[in-house]
Amino acid sequence: MQLRRFYIPTLTTEDETVVLPEGESQHALRVLRLSPGDEVLLLNGQGLVALAELQASPDGARKGRQAVCRVLEIQEHPRLEPQLALCVAPPRGKAFEWILRTATELGVAVVQPILCRYGMARPEGVSENWLETLAAALKQSQNPWLPEVRAPRVFSVVLQEAISGGEASIFGASPAAEATPHQPLSSEMAVRVSRVWVGPEGGFAPDEEAALLTAGCVPVTIGSSTLRVETAVPALMGYLWGCRHAGKEEAR
Amino acid sequence: MQLRRFYIPTLTTEDETVVLPEGESQHALRVLRLSPGDEVLLLNGQGLVALAELQASPDGARKGRQAVCRVLEIQEHPRLEPQLALCVAPPRGKAFEWILRTATELGVAVVQPILCRYGMARPEGVSENWLETLAAALKQSQNPWLPEVRAPRVFSVVLQEAISGGEASIFGASPAAEATPHQPLSSEMAVRVSRVWVGPEGGFAPDEEAALLTAGCVPVTIGSSTLRVETAVPALMGYLWGCRHAGKEEAR
Repeated sequence: MQLRRFYIPTLTTEDETVVLPEGESQHALRVLRLSPGDEVLLLNGQGLVALAELQASPDGARKGRQAVCRVLEIQEHPRLEPQLALCVAPPRGKAFEWILRTATELGVAVVQPILCRYGMARPEGVSENWLETLAAALKQSQNPWLPEVRAPRVFSVVLQEAISGGEASIFGASPAAEATPHQPLSSEMAVRVSRVWVGPEGGFAPDEEAALLTAGCVPVTIGSSTLRVETAVPALMGYLWGCRHAGKEEAR
Repeated sequence: MQLRRFYIPTLTTEDETVVLPEGESQHALRVLRLSPGDEVLLLNGQGLVALAELQASPDGARKGRQAVCRVLEIQEHPRLEPQLALCVAPPRGKAFEWILRTATELGVAVVQPILCRYGMARPEGVSENWLETLAAALKQSQNPWLPEVRAPRVFSVVLQEAISGGEASIFGASPAAEATPHQPLSSEMAVRVSRVWVGPEGGFAPDEEAALLTAGCVPVTIGSSTLRVETAVPALMGYLWGCRHAGKEEAR
């Protein structure tokens, strides 16, 4: 039986006893009906995972409102390296939340929504729903690191910054476009890729694609059909893992 | 502006004029309000894609009920090779339909739902919803080939058949399990892989994983967190593409 998991961003390695945030306390006590002595996992989203034990509530009046936990054991997990930034054009509706879940499961460090010519949605800021989705995905996937989701920005501005950072990157190219890379993606380069660009379902606009190519970003096409953004994100992430893995095997 | 797409499984290369199926006719005439002279794309899900032109309805009484199209041009698309079978443990609820969409976008030839020890859902047959989802995904992705979805079967039975077929395959292994392959996945082997196994969110049961390893199926772990089945499917497919691609680059 897997332990119940709770997100408590304030957790530090110094903590001996912690009080879960209000929503998490409610969930623990009222929904899951956990009792003193039950063991739980606490995640701070910054690499800490603690095994803890629910305590009896110290304050009679607040009983049932605050879940108090005693930390039994705490582990610090390193980030996946290289840290990966996902620059993605948000699809309409709930699909972007789906992408945030996927990004959490796959260990993305930063999600940067980009506003593209053919984008279907133009969200103005980081919504509360996004943060709740990330926290839920953190608990479900047991990833010790919460991705940072940034405020949406215009594609060209984000690209300009990335270029000046000089990092290796790939982008999802639509099968129709037949983009030609300035250099192909080798296993050796795949290991260094720290940014993945995914455009809207119709793909990047021709001038956006040209700008990516000029910046040395390598086009990747998976299959011969049009992918939804929700499919393109995990497929490109998997692609990168496959390239890296194949390089290790060849090097044996 | 992209052409509207319609699924008409009876379409053949001999056809000069076709009548769209009832649901598609309704959609064309009543929802999209297409008029005679409008161009559309017709897909039969078996590799044929036709450019066609809507005709005036020949029968006054049935006007608005049957969309008649004149075929202008027809193309035959080959299947992606090697044909890929996806053996996947259906998650609860709508998530399996999500997987069917993904499989269509990524060019999977056969989807075989498998009933595993830790599986969350045990569907009994191929539901009408599944077929409708596939048809919708076919149109959205413009994949000329409709995946075949088979009736759910018990994991061990499907594995037994696959073993006797002698094919190369990979399976999604949970990061906790640390499964050791009998041989690692090389780029050369990745090119021959024709089956991908994805277990339930908790992963395959230990004896199921042992059976896969004994059968020579190669474990693949992506990231260090628990993946939902909906994420594992496109990530593993992308992984396979990445391995294949890296092999080609090394061979240059």
